Amino acid sequence: MKTLNVGLVGCGFMGRTHSNAFLSVANFFDLPVKPVLKTVCARSSDRATAFASRWGFESSVNAWRSLVEDPAIDLIDIASPNDTHAEIAIAAAKAGKMVMCEKPLGRTAAESEAIVAAVEQAGVANMAWYNYRRVPAVTLAKQLIDDGQLGKVFHYRAKFLQDWTISSELPQGGEGLWRLDASVAGSGVTGDLLAHTIDTALWLNGSIAEVSAMTETFIKSRKHNLTGKVEPVKIDDASAFLARFANGSLGTFEATRYARGHKALYTLEINGENASIIWDLHDLHRLQYFDHRDEGRVRGWRSIHVTDREHPYMDRWWVPGLQIGYEHTFIHQVADFMKGLADGKPASPTFREALATDYVTDAVLQSAANRCWKSVRGQ
Amino acid sequence: MKTLNVGLVGCGFMGRTHSNAFLSVANFFDLPVKPVLKTVCARSSDRATAFASRWGFESSVNAWRSLVEDPAIDLIDIASPNDTHAEIAIAAAKAGKMVMCEKPLGRTAAESEAIVAAVEQAGVANMAWYNYRRVPAVTLAKQLIDDGQLGKVFHYRAKFLQDWTISSELPQGGEGLWRLDASVAGSGVTGDLLAHTIDTALWLNGSIAEVSAMTETFIKSRKHNLTGKVEPVKIDDASAFLARFANGSLGTFEATRYARGHKALYTLEINGENASIIWDLHDLHRLQYFDHRDEGRVRGWRSIHVTDREHPYMDRWWVPGLQIGYEHTFIHQVADFMKGLADGKPASPTFREALATDYVTDAVLQSAANRCWKSVRGQ
Amino acid sequence: MKTLNVGLVGCGFMGRTHSNAFLSVANFFDLPVKPVLKTVCARSSDRATAFASRWGFESSVNAWRSLVEDPAIDLIDIASPNDTHAEIAIAAAKAGKMVMCEKPLGRTAAESEAIVAAVEQAGVANMAWYNYRRVPAVTLAKQLIDDGQLGKVFHYRAKFLQDWTISSELPQGGEGLWRLDASVAGSGVTGDLLAHTIDTALWLNGSIAEVSAMTETFIKSRKHNLTGKVEPVKIDDASAFLARFANGSLGTFEATRYARGHKALYTLEINGENASIIWDLHDLHRLQYFDHRDEGRVRGWRSIHVTDREHPYMDRWWVPGLQIGYEHTFIHQVADFMKGLADGKPASPTFREALATDYVTDAVLQSAANRCWKSVRGQ
Amino acid sequence: MKTLNVGLVGCGFMGRTHSNAFLSVANFFDLPVKPVLKTVCARSSDRATAFASRWGFESSVNAWRSLVEDPAIDLIDIASPNDTHAEIAIAAAKAGKMVMCEKPLGRTAAESEAIVAAVEQAGVANMAWYNYRRVPAVTLAKQLIDDGQLGKVFHYRAKFLQDWTISSELPQGGEGLWRLDASVAGSGVTGDLLAHTIDTALWLNGSIAEVSAMTETFIKSRKHNLTGKVEPVKIDDASAFLARFANGSLGTFEATRYARGHKALYTLEINGENASIIWDLHDLHRLQYFDHRDEGRVRGWRSIHVTDREHPYMDRWWVPGLQIGYEHTFIHQVADFMKGLADGKPASPTFREALATDYVTDAVLQSAANRCWKSVRGQ
Repeated sequence: MKTLNVGLVGCGFMGRTHSNAFLSVANFFDLPVKPVLKTVCARSSDRATAFASRWGFESSVNAWRSLVEDPAIDLIDIASPNDTHAEIAIAAAKAGKMVMCEKPLGRTAAESEAIVAAVEQAGVANMAWYNYRRVPAVTLAKQLIDDGQLGKVFHYRAKFLQDWTISSELPQGGEGLWRLDASVAGSGVTGDLLAHTIDTALWLNGSIAEVSAMTETFIKSRKHNLTGKVEPVKIDDASAFLARFANGSLGTFEATRYARGHKALYTLEINGENASIIWDLHDLHRLQYFDHRDEGRVRGWRSIHVTDREHPYMDRWWVPGLQIGYEHTFIHQVADFMKGLADGKPASPTFREALATDYVTDAVLQSAANRCWKSVRGQ
Repeated sequence: MKTLNVGLVGCGFMGRTHSNAFLSVANFFDLPVKPVLKTVCARSSDRATAFASRWGFESSVNAWRSLVEDPAIDLIDIASPNDTHAEIAIAAAKAGKMVMCEKPLGRTAAESEAIVAAVEQAGVANMAWYNYRRVPAVTLAKQLIDDGQLGKVFHYRAKFLQDWTISSELPQGGEGLWRLDASVAGSGVTGDLLAHTIDTALWLNGSIAEVSAMTETFIKSRKHNLTGKVEPVKIDDASAFLARFANGSLGTFEATRYARGHKALYTLEINGENASIIWDLHDLHRLQYFDHRDEGRVRGWRSIHVTDREHPYMDRWWVPGLQIGYEHTFIHQVADFMKGLADGKPASPTFREALATDYVTDAVLQSAANRCWKSVRGQ
Repeated sequence: MKTLNVGLVGCGFMGRTHSNAFLSVANFFDLPVKPVLKTVCARSSDRATAFASRWGFESSVNAWRSLVEDPAIDLIDIASPNDTHAEIAIAAAKAGKMVMCEKPLGRTAAESEAIVAAVEQAGVANMAWYNYRRVPAVTLAKQLIDDGQLGKVFHYRAKFLQDWTISSELPQGGEGLWRLDASVAGSGVTGDLLAHTIDTALWLNGSIAEVSAMTETFIKSRKHNLTGKVEPVKIDDASAFLARFANGSLGTFEATRYARGHKALYTLEINGENASIIWDLHDLHRLQYFDHRDEGRVRGWRSIHVTDREHPYMDRWWVPGLQIGYEHTFIHQVADFMKGLADGKPASPTFREALATDYVTDAVLQSAANRCWKSVRGQ
Repeated sequence: MKTLNVGLVGCGFMGRTHSNAFLSVANFFDLPVKPVLKTVCARSSDRATAFASRWGFESSVNAWRSLVEDPAIDLIDIASPNDTHAEIAIAAAKAGKMVMCEKPLGRTAAESEAIVAAVEQAGVANMAWYNYRRVPAVTLAKQLIDDGQLGKVFHYRAKFLQDWTISSELPQGGEGLWRLDASVAGSGVTGDLLAHTIDTALWLNGSIAEVSAMTETFIKSRKHNLTGKVEPVKIDDASAFLARFANGSLGTFEATRYARGHKALYTLEINGENASIIWDLHDLHRLQYFDHRDEGRVRGWRSIHVTDREHPYMDRWWVPGLQIGYEHTFIHQVADFMKGLADGKPASPTFREALATDYVTDAVLQSAANRCWKSVRGQ
C-alpha cells in the first residue's frame, strides 16, 4: 500500500489524539494511502523521544524546522499551541508539504489568511482538525439536513460549557495551561470552544451574516506559571453571541469555562419547519431527532443510538449498540483526508473553510469590544 | 343535571384521591350524571367530621352500616383498609347500592369471589380503583396495542419499586401503617404493588397462564404500633415472578419496598414484533415508543410528551406541553364510570375483571411458598 | 371560615386555571381566608353563563364594570387579554378591590406603571400570576439559592420554546388567537413567553442591568380571523437576548414559537461557583442539581424527584413519587396570596415586582429595534 | 521493554477487538510486558492472511495446532466459536502457553471444568474475556461496593436485551451466525448474554445460591445457512431467572434477542441499604448513583459522567467529559493481565472464576427444563 510520512509537531493532548488516529486508521478503514508515523517534534528532546517511543515514531526532533526541511516527510501535522500555527504552516507549505493544523487555524483571522494564502499558493493538501464534524451522530445530522429533512430552518443553538477554570488558584500559562495565556492562545473560550460550535454551524446551517456578542473575564488576575507573577488575565472566560444566518435563521451561541457541572458539554440544536435535531458531546453517540411528519399521537423526540451499520462510519467499527468515543472522530478525519487525496476531492474543512470560522470569532470579539452588531467578513 | 350521591368509607390517602375526583370531575368532563359528595364515614367521628368539612360532604358518620342503610346514598365507595372491603362491598350490593372499591378487591381471591358474586347477584354497577389504567400515557399504550401496532408480543416487563420500609425502626400496623400488617392488608407488596402491575398487564397483554415466584421478608420482626409488641413480620417485603402469558409472551414482574432511591417507580415495558413501549410512573406524562418500521438511520425510542389534545383525556385539560399528575387518573376513572352508567357499557375494571388480578396474586404467593410453577386459575 | 368573594374576568385558558385554583385550594391547604367563586364576567353572556355553571360561580355578567361596581366582590381577578388589563385593574383598584392579574401586567411598562400606581394609591392587595415561581422544583431552587448553596453566580440561561405557529395557515387574532395580534397582546413571544423567564430570573438571580436583543417575525403576513383580511404580522415570533445581571453574572434568554418539537419547553439553568441547577417545564416535577462539593468520583447531576414531604408545597399533596402537574402552580399561588393577606406579608410577585419584568421586556424590544445594548430601567 | 508473543485464534468480531487491544494498549498504559501480534489463525488461509495484513501480525496459519506447537508463541488467545474453546485451551495449556479465552469458557460447565483443570495443572496464566468488568463505570461500581458504600444489599437486577433475531428469515448457523447453532454455541442467550450479566453479578454481589428459570424459543425452525435445510432451532431465544444470592439479596435476570428497540442493552442495578447503582451499556460512560445519606431535599439519582482522571482507567485517556467506548474495555483487560503477570496477582476473571458463571448458566438451563428451583453448584 502507498504510504505517507507524517511529521508531527506537538506532544500534548492533541499530539496524542492525532498520533492515535494516524496509527490505527488503517486497522479499520480501507485506505488508498496509509499514514506512517515518521518523526515527532517537541521543544524538549526528552519529551519528544519518550513520545516517539510510546507511539512508534521512527525518530524525534526538537525543532520544527528540521521536520519542514526533511525530504522524507510528506505531511506536517501541527498540534502545538496556537501561536506557532502560522509560522509552521506557512513554512511547511513553502516546503511543499501537505499540512494539517489544529484549530483554530491562527490566533486571528489575519494569521489564518496568511496560512490559507500559503497553502493555496503552494497547492498543497490541507485540513483543519475540527474533529466534531466526524462524530457519527453529527455527520448523520449533516446527511439529514442535506437530504432536506428539516425544511426551512428557523433556529440554531449551540453551547460549549466547561468548568475547569473556576478556581482562582489556577495559574495562567505554562505547561498544559497555555489556553489561559492570551499571547499564546489568541483568545479564551472564543477561539478554543466557540470556534468548534461555529465550525459545525457553518457546516450544517451555512454562513453567519452578523453577530452581537458579549465576553467576560470573571477572574481578573492570575499567577503566571512560568514567571510566577500575578498578572491581568487577558483571555475571555465566557463568550456569548446572537447571530443572524444568511438563510434567515437565528442563532444563539455560548461558551464558558465557568459552568459548574459541565466538563465538555458541547450541545447543538437545529429547528426546522419539519424536523429538529439535538446533539450533545457528553453522549456523543446519540442524536435526538423530532419529525413533525410522524403521526400525531406517537410523535416524540427520537433518541437515535448512532451505532448501526447504516450510520456514518459505523460499518467500520463494532456491532449495533456498542458505542465509540471521542478519539474516533480524529480517526475518521484521517480516513477522509486520505480518501480525499486519492479522489481529488479535498476533505473538509480545508484551511479556507476553517478561515470562515475565524472571521466569525473575529467579529464576535470585535462586537463584544464595541458593544454593537458586527457584520461577519465574507470570503 | 342528574346527580348521584356518594357515600365514602375511609378518610386516608385514598379517601382524599377519591373525594378530589368526585368533586372536580364535572369541572373538566361533560358528564351524564354528576357525583355529589353526600356522606363520609370514618371510625373516628372527629376525623369524619373534619374530612367532611374540608371536602364538602354534606354529612359524616362513624359506622359504614349507616351509609349502606341510607336511602339517600346511591353509591358506596370503599377506600378503607383491605380487611374491610368484602364485608362492606357485600352489604352495599345487597342494599342495592352501586359499589366502587379500592384495590385489591379482597385480601384473597376467595374474598374477592364473594364480592363479585354479591354485586353480580344484585346487578349493581361496580368498579375497582386500578387507577393507573387511566394515566393518559398508559391509555395511549392500550390504544396502540388494540390498533395492532406492536404485532406479536414477545415480552412484558413490570416493576413497582419503593424504599420506604428499609428502616428497621418503622413499626408495623396502626394509623397509616396497616399496609405492613398482614392481617389487615392480606399480603405485603404482592397485593399492594404487584397487583397494580398485574392489572395493567392483563389489560394490555391478556391473561397469565402460569407463574414462578419468590417472596422475601427482609426485616423479620417489627414493633406493632398499636400493641407496642415486637412481633414477626408476616407480609412479603419483596415479591418477584416469572410468567407465561396465554399469548405466548414471557413476563417478569417485581415489587419491593427495599429498592433504595425509588419512591413509587412503577415501570412497564412491552416488546412486540414491530414496536415496543415503555412507561414509568415517575414521569407518568411520557410514553417511550419504538417503531421498527421507521426508516433505519433515524430509528430511535420516541419520548412522547402525552399532553396533546389528541391524546387520551388530554383534550379536557390544559394545552400541549403542560402536564397533569397523579390525581387525574382518579378523575378520569370517575368520568368513565359515569359515562358507563349512561351508555350501559360498564367502565373497566369491574370487580370481575379485578378478580383476575387476585387469581394471579394468589398464584404468586402459592408459588413462592411451594417453590414451584403454579397455574393461574381461570374464570 | 372567613371568605373572600372573587370576581373573575375572562373565561379562556387562564379563566379555567384560576377558577380551578380558587375552587380546590381549600381542599389541600389550611387557609386563613377561603376564596368563593362569586361572579364571572365574559363579553358573551352565553359563555359567561356556561362557565359559571361548570365552575360553580354564583352568577355571571357580561361587562367587567358590573364586577367592579358590585359591593359583594372582594377581589377582581383579571384573566382577559392583555389589552384589557390596565383599564380593569385601575378601575378595580379605585373601587377598593383587591386585584390579581394575569401576566404580563400591561402591554408596555408604561401601562404597568399606571396599574402599579393605582393599586399602591388605593392600598389594595395585588398579585401577578407568574405561576412558575410556584412549581415546587422552582421554589426549591429559590430555597437553595437563598441558602447560599450556589455561591457566586456566573451564568443564567433560560429558554421558552414552542412550535404552534409554524404553519402559515394559522390566522392572527380572534378567539383563542389574540396572542398573535399585536394590538391586543402588546408583543409576541417577548411579553408572552420571555416575560415568564425574566420573572423567574429576577426572582432567582436579581436584577438585570442591560440587554442586547434580536427579534424576528418569520411569517410576515397572516389572515386576521375576525376581519378575514391578510395583514402584516406585527408581533415578534422569536426573541433572544444577552444580559448582564447586577450581580455580575451573564444571561442568555430566548423565546420562540418556531422551535419544532417543543410544546412549552421553558428551561432554566443557573451556574454558581459551588453548585448548579437546571429545571424544565416538560418534566416540571424534577430539579437537576449538581454540587461540586460532593466527593469527586461520585459527583454528578442529581435528578431530584421533587415529590417528598419536605419539598415546597408537597406535604399538601400525595405521597413521595406521585407527581403533580401544571395547574397546581396556580393553587399554590392562591394559597400564598391568602396567607399573605392574613400575615401582612404580601405574596410575591406584587404588581410592583411584576413591573420589573416589563422594564426588561421593554428594553429587549428597544434593543432589538435599535440594534444596540440597552440599559434596563430601575425602580 | 519485555515482550510477549500473541497467537490469536479467530478473525471474527472478537478477533478484531482482541487485536486492537493488544496493538494499542502500550500507547496508553505503562506496561511491564508489551504484547506483540505474532501469528493469527483462521480456518481460511485467505482470511487469515488478510487479517494478519490489516492488523500487523507477523504471520498467519490455518490450523490452531500450529500455533500451539510454535515455540515463539507465549500466549494463545482464543476468539473462535464456543465449540473450539476446550480443545484449544487444553492443548495450549499442555504446551505451556498462557491462555486467554472468549466467554463463555466452555459450552457447558463440564467443558469449562476440563479447561480449568488443564491450566491449573500446567500452571499457566489465564483469563476469560468478560470485558464488561473493565467499563470504567462498572469498575467504579465495584470500588463503591468494596468501600461499603451500599451497605446491606437487597436487590440485584440485570438484563441483556437485543432484537436482531426477530425475523424468521434469519438463518441459523454459518459465517457470523454460529451463535444460533446450538451445537456450536452450546446454548442461546443464556451462554451468550446472560453469562455476561452473571459474571458481573458474581463479581459485584457474590455467589448465587439457587435459581428458578424459564427459557423460550420463539421461532421453532430456521433454515441452516450451510446445509440449506430447515431444521428445529435448539437454542434458547430468551432466558430469565429469579435468583437468591448467598448474601441474602434477591436477583432477577433476563436476556433475549426479541426485545424490539434494544441493540445491546445490558443494564444492571443494585439496591443497598444506603445507596443504589444503575448502569447500562448503551451509555456505558455513565453511572447512576443514589446516596440516601445526601440531604433529603436535594437527594436524587446522580448521573456520573465517568470520564474524570480519578475514575478507573480514565487517567490514561483524554480529558474530563470526553468519553471512551466499547473497545476500550478489552484494552483495559489486556493492561490488567500484563500487570498481573508482573506482580504475580492474576487479573480476574481467571478461568476458575469464569467457571462460576458456567455453574450458574448450567443451573439456569436445568431449572428451565425441570420447572423447579435449582441449586447452583459451588466450587
